[in-house]
Amino acid sequence: MEKADKRKLQQAFGKTIGQLRLEQNISQAKLAERGNFNRTYISDLERGIKQPSLSTIVRLAYAFEMKSSELIEQFEKLFEIK
Amino acid sequence: MEKADKRKLQQAFGKTIGQLRLEQNISQAKLAERGNFNRTYISDLERGIKQPSLSTIVRLAYAFEMKSSELIEQFEKLFEIK
Repeated sequence: MEKADKRKLQQAFGKTIGQLRLEQNISQAKLAERGNFNRTYISDLERGIKQPSLSTIVRLAYAFEMKSSELIEQFEKLFEIK
Repeated sequence: MEKADKRKLQQAFGKTIGQLRLEQNISQAKLAERGNFNRTYISDLERGIKQPSLSTIVRLAYAFEMKSSELIEQFEKLFEIK
């Protein structure tokens, strides 16, 4: 994957998290608490600065009370690989 | 996530990749070539030694000609978070 694509991927994932937070009306702090994350890490993810590992994806899905595959489905809507 | 859970997660993901390779009847070398991975990396993933990032998941799904969410769905069948 090209660097530009990786950046787009991270941005799309960050947007996914931000959208889900809005839908569920929870703050970054609340999401961090639910998934046992650092709030700064949630902020970095949403800004597309950090890339999540599989375990982060699983924990985020858990915090949002959804399946990991559903979280990735939401992400797919925002990300098109070139 | 506890260390033991992370190991289980990685093992479940490795098993997912191995199963998909079997279903599609392709070698680790072929999968590596398709997704532009190092073959050693595929081997490490399958043995549950390495944890994939989101971009790895996306590239693996691409190599298997499936959606990332479908790949994660297969993984979910093999992994139950405690």
